[in-house]
Amino acid sequence: MVKKIGFIGLGIMGQNMATHILTHGFSLNIWNRTRPKMENLLQQGAESADNPADLAAKSEAVIVCVTDEAAVEQVLFGRDGVTAGARPETLIIDMSTINPQASRQHAAALAKRGFSMLDAPVSGSKEGAAQGTLSIMVGGAEVDFKKALPIFKAMGQNIVHVGSRCGDGQTVKLVNQLLAAGHTLVMCEALLFAQAGGVDLEKTLAAVSTGAAGSWMLTHRGPQILMRDWQPGFTIDLQLKSTGSVLKAADSFGVPVPVTALIYQYYRALQARGLGKQGHHALIKVLENLAGIRVGPMDKNEK
Amino acid sequence: MVKKIGFIGLGIMGQNMATHILTHGFSLNIWNRTRPKMENLLQQGAESADNPADLAAKSEAVIVCVTDEAAVEQVLFGRDGVTAGARPETLIIDMSTINPQASRQHAAALAKRGFSMLDAPVSGSKEGAAQGTLSIMVGGAEVDFKKALPIFKAMGQNIVHVGSRCGDGQTVKLVNQLLAAGHTLVMCEALLFAQAGGVDLEKTLAAVSTGAAGSWMLTHRGPQILMRDWQPGFTIDLQLKSTGSVLKAADSFGVPVPVTALIYQYYRALQARGLGKQGHHALIKVLENLAGIRVGPMDKNEK
Repeated sequence: MVKKIGFIGLGIMGQNMATHILTHGFSLNIWNRTRPKMENLLQQGAESADNPADLAAKSEAVIVCVTDEAAVEQVLFGRDGVTAGARPETLIIDMSTINPQASRQHAAALAKRGFSMLDAPVSGSKEGAAQGTLSIMVGGAEVDFKKALPIFKAMGQNIVHVGSRCGDGQTVKLVNQLLAAGHTLVMCEALLFAQAGGVDLEKTLAAVSTGAAGSWMLTHRGPQILMRDWQPGFTIDLQLKSTGSVLKAADSFGVPVPVTALIYQYYRALQARGLGKQGHHALIKVLENLAGIRVGPMDKNEK
Repeated sequence: MVKKIGFIGLGIMGQNMATHILTHGFSLNIWNRTRPKMENLLQQGAESADNPADLAAKSEAVIVCVTDEAAVEQVLFGRDGVTAGARPETLIIDMSTINPQASRQHAAALAKRGFSMLDAPVSGSKEGAAQGTLSIMVGGAEVDFKKALPIFKAMGQNIVHVGSRCGDGQTVKLVNQLLAAGHTLVMCEALLFAQAGGVDLEKTLAAVSTGAAGSWMLTHRGPQILMRDWQPGFTIDLQLKSTGSVLKAADSFGVPVPVTALIYQYYRALQARGLGKQGHHALIKVLENLAGIRVGPMDKNEK
């Protein structure tokens, strides 16, 4: 059984995920581009590596959890990258969210060098990472999935091996993002319709949330919209990136995604208005501008 | 407390709703345009009325549950209609699903004659009616709502007084329909994206249904789509009518509903192809035609 884990990328998600690995009895080597983010885990018993190659040399499995394709490529294939230190039996697990196509390219390049890879993006946001309740969507060979499963169990709850090709996890992550964005738009249209119809919005939510019209988004973000609370669970900037990735992947798959295409344009407009750091449920502001009415308490200073 | 109830309209919904009223200890007078649909309830102890006027004369509260605005108008204001037999203290409860504007007009016409009305459309489909677990969305005066609450409790679980005007229940019912239709479209787009991306669709549903991307529709109709099971919980014909009502109401409220407008056109196309009696999740066929691919097992004879 794999016991020595290396973890690269200690952002908000990575910090929490790595902590769970440590508390579940694995030994943990860590590396992060900026050193201060390593402090917390070092104090909890993790060991620091000098660079990704050094980390890989000391680990049986290497987890990468960084921001984008370029960062993944850098830590895997760059000078002092993972491939410079790993042995053939080292399992590489990319838990970053990147495009499926890029994930397949990384896997192919690793295979040429004799390394196995899983792609394993997560959903559930920072709360899920903190509580160890993430959903983990895994693509890659069955044998590698079995090897990694105990590590995934330390970090998440709903762990699904969605396909045998690397990149399949990323595809399902994009399905997740498409659904979440779509449900957000539908919720916004519904709340604005209710507002225009003159009914009590809180009571409307109470009446429709529990039945066939219900969604996670409506239950969790609907009340936030009524309070005009734009604290992000997930920002507009990130949702623009997500829906953009869906469009790019859909284009390469040759499949139309008309609703997502519309949503992408809406998020683009909000980002251009300087609202990129607000929660993605602020999507309702596009429809509010279109309709010339708004939901919830008025605040003329609100951006 | 109101004990003598009259029930007009014994379709699939009405039959089940009236049965619950009877089993909860109310006395029940019934009337239906076609007599044979009364038999079942008469055998269970309901009493038949000759016409809506006769029924109203014998009841403290009259429930109407018929197919459309014209039918409601007929049973309320027609010759031998409810208003020809009711007394001023008779409470009229319209549980049909009709346009909010029509509901307000009925309430105004009843008020002129001295009668009180609640509008109280339901959601939860025939299963909800059979099990007594309907959601009931009620518009009208608080005093009337309190009077009717014990009757509602016999038929439903989630009973919300959504507004003080008659028609407010209908508005919230339309919010419910807008959400359900929107979630259906988003689900279809997501499943077709996943199909094009080459991942296992059952595993995809398992991975995304429980988190922030989840919806009632995805959990209940997603698996049905993968089996290409078009048995209706709610038909395309009915969903076309529902989304048409949303568009009409939105127009009168002066609010744009871009997603619902698109969905209406899609349902119109499916009805024109002769698929009106299929379940509304067959909406995916529009996207399948657009994309030239399909989900689930192939059957070349399928309509």
